Amino acid sequence: MEWLNEPCRVLDNAAAAEARERQAQLTKPAGALGDLEDIAIRLAGMQQRGHPAVDKVHISVFAADHGVAEEGVSAFPQAVTTQMVHNFLNGGAAISVLAKELGATLEVIDVGLKNPVSHLGLISQRVADGADNSTQQAAMTEWQLGLALQAGFDAVERAHANGAELFIGGEMGIGNTTAATALYCALLDLPPLEVVGPGTGLDQAGMLHKVKVVQRILNLHRHYCHKPLEALRRMGGFEIAALTGAYVRAAQWGIPVLVDGFISTAAALIATALQPAVSDWLFLSHTSGEPGHVFAVAELKQRPLLELGMRLGEGSGAAVAVPLLRMACALHNRMATFAEASVTGKL
Amino acid sequence: MEWLNEPCRVLDNAAAAEARERQAQLTKPAGALGDLEDIAIRLAGMQQRGHPAVDKVHISVFAADHGVAEEGVSAFPQAVTTQMVHNFLNGGAAISVLAKELGATLEVIDVGLKNPVSHLGLISQRVADGADNSTQQAAMTEWQLGLALQAGFDAVERAHANGAELFIGGEMGIGNTTAATALYCALLDLPPLEVVGPGTGLDQAGMLHKVKVVQRILNLHRHYCHKPLEALRRMGGFEIAALTGAYVRAAQWGIPVLVDGFISTAAALIATALQPAVSDWLFLSHTSGEPGHVFAVAELKQRPLLELGMRLGEGSGAAVAVPLLRMACALHNRMATFAEASVTGKL
Repeated sequence: MEWLNEPCRVLDNAAAAEARERQAQLTKPAGALGDLEDIAIRLAGMQQRGHPAVDKVHISVFAADHGVAEEGVSAFPQAVTTQMVHNFLNGGAAISVLAKELGATLEVIDVGLKNPVSHLGLISQRVADGADNSTQQAAMTEWQLGLALQAGFDAVERAHANGAELFIGGEMGIGNTTAATALYCALLDLPPLEVVGPGTGLDQAGMLHKVKVVQRILNLHRHYCHKPLEALRRMGGFEIAALTGAYVRAAQWGIPVLVDGFISTAAALIATALQPAVSDWLFLSHTSGEPGHVFAVAELKQRPLLELGMRLGEGSGAAVAVPLLRMACALHNRMATFAEASVTGKL
Repeated sequence: MEWLNEPCRVLDNAAAAEARERQAQLTKPAGALGDLEDIAIRLAGMQQRGHPAVDKVHISVFAADHGVAEEGVSAFPQAVTTQMVHNFLNGGAAISVLAKELGATLEVIDVGLKNPVSHLGLISQRVADGADNSTQQAAMTEWQLGLALQAGFDAVERAHANGAELFIGGEMGIGNTTAATALYCALLDLPPLEVVGPGTGLDQAGMLHKVKVVQRILNLHRHYCHKPLEALRRMGGFEIAALTGAYVRAAQWGIPVLVDGFISTAAALIATALQPAVSDWLFLSHTSGEPGHVFAVAELKQRPLLELGMRLGEGSGAAVAVPLLRMACALHNRMATFAEASVTGKL
């Protein structure tokens, strides 16, 4: 896991300054494109060019099962993790439809399904037959943690090799809002009652039960709550670890990342705790409908681009935000300046 | 103006119900796509089909000058209205770039520039050489109001003839945040100090001056503040009237409308005051960076799709929201159902 400590790429401040200067010359009042201006300027600094682009988008969806699902914390049965992997690959899931709309590369990685899948399109990087039940023991061993992080590293290597201009990580794993909730509580010092939400659709009684399960996880691992990697190993899951590795690696290569929702942001919390500079490379795509998400958003000190009440995961919220980045680039690159259009400037 | 009273098309509740039923069967937890589900269901009801689409987008930008610009209420000189019309037509403005990104039809209509423009691409439907100064007299005569409303009617007729699945109105007119602010204050009973914002970039002193100008407008026309058409005639502008006419006509034809920001929403207030059923056909695209916009949004009882701090006009905020509608349709139409994908449902 030594690669985790390699430094992140440094933003190109000259390219960002050039982009900021250009924004001031485009035919619009200063600041009138709002956040779209900041997006273009940030992307310029990330991509070391005054005219940024996010045409090539790489989406990696990591799927794994969770032993904690045994505790009855999800509204859906565990078999759905594997069934949805088939759905991803067959084009019927939300992220499949969105990837096609965007012309994005979509890959699906099995990092630890309980029931292995045979499908030509699947990348198999199985760590184990699901993570262990974190109410009873650590979710994974150190060796397994290393393998799961490596799966994220490898996905970003593929993205880089393909010339990706934007990386999106997605996840699937019945039980993973429980794992992510435990990580939120551990890393941000929050009581479970404030963070637990309905996940895939629990009712009030189900959420109260989930609060108790999360509390049991926190009690068992209470001495490791503030050590990001150890908290991840004990309370997380293989797909959350893979996302963590992917975010760190993307920052090391200097590939902009669009973070999805509740689960993905848990990985972003860990990645930025390991290396604060990772946050330079992250855009938060949306505020999740899962109510606890706002706590992680506040910690990351960025306003998400969208707030549509989405709470699906798979990378779907991030995919929905891609056109905003593309339009920010189009406006930045193709609008005329005051001089070019012979438009008089501000009085 | 009798056409203003023709009834709006009635939503197809059966198609909306069919769409709602389909949403419940798609491979995701119920409600997990948040507002995107509601968008697809609303569009189905508007388009009388279970599988809605917004591929064909028609954007009409109405440009006109304002006599009230003489009062020094804008950070930009009045000549910019005409200069920007050239910029729209030559492809250098924000809305030009966005329309091209979206594959949308973009038309620019002169409804009353002070300085006429000769350009092959321009639609000329000039009401006058700019509206009159509303601090001293009504902005327009009744005859002129009728012509300006008709320009919006005609734009929607063209959109309908072209098979548009979505209509966006945009505007350009130096001084028009002052006109729109006066209309907000008149129709919503608000003091100017609460509604006036920087527009294209006024400083604090400029905004205080603008408050006084708006107050003078309201004082002069105080007996007509609650009569929507008469308020529009006295305090509005030709482009705001054209947008009003366009929104009413779109609702009569049953074409979904994506409303832009501060100025456009003034037109939406008037259109819905004339016929409340117009609101069935409107989507609010974004919350403007112009601070007073929230008052009109509250009156229209819809949550805008985006909040990016945009405050440019031209229809640009609405254009930026188009991909959300398209992705809502793509997800709705192309995701697999639980049965199709053999995914187990909720426990």
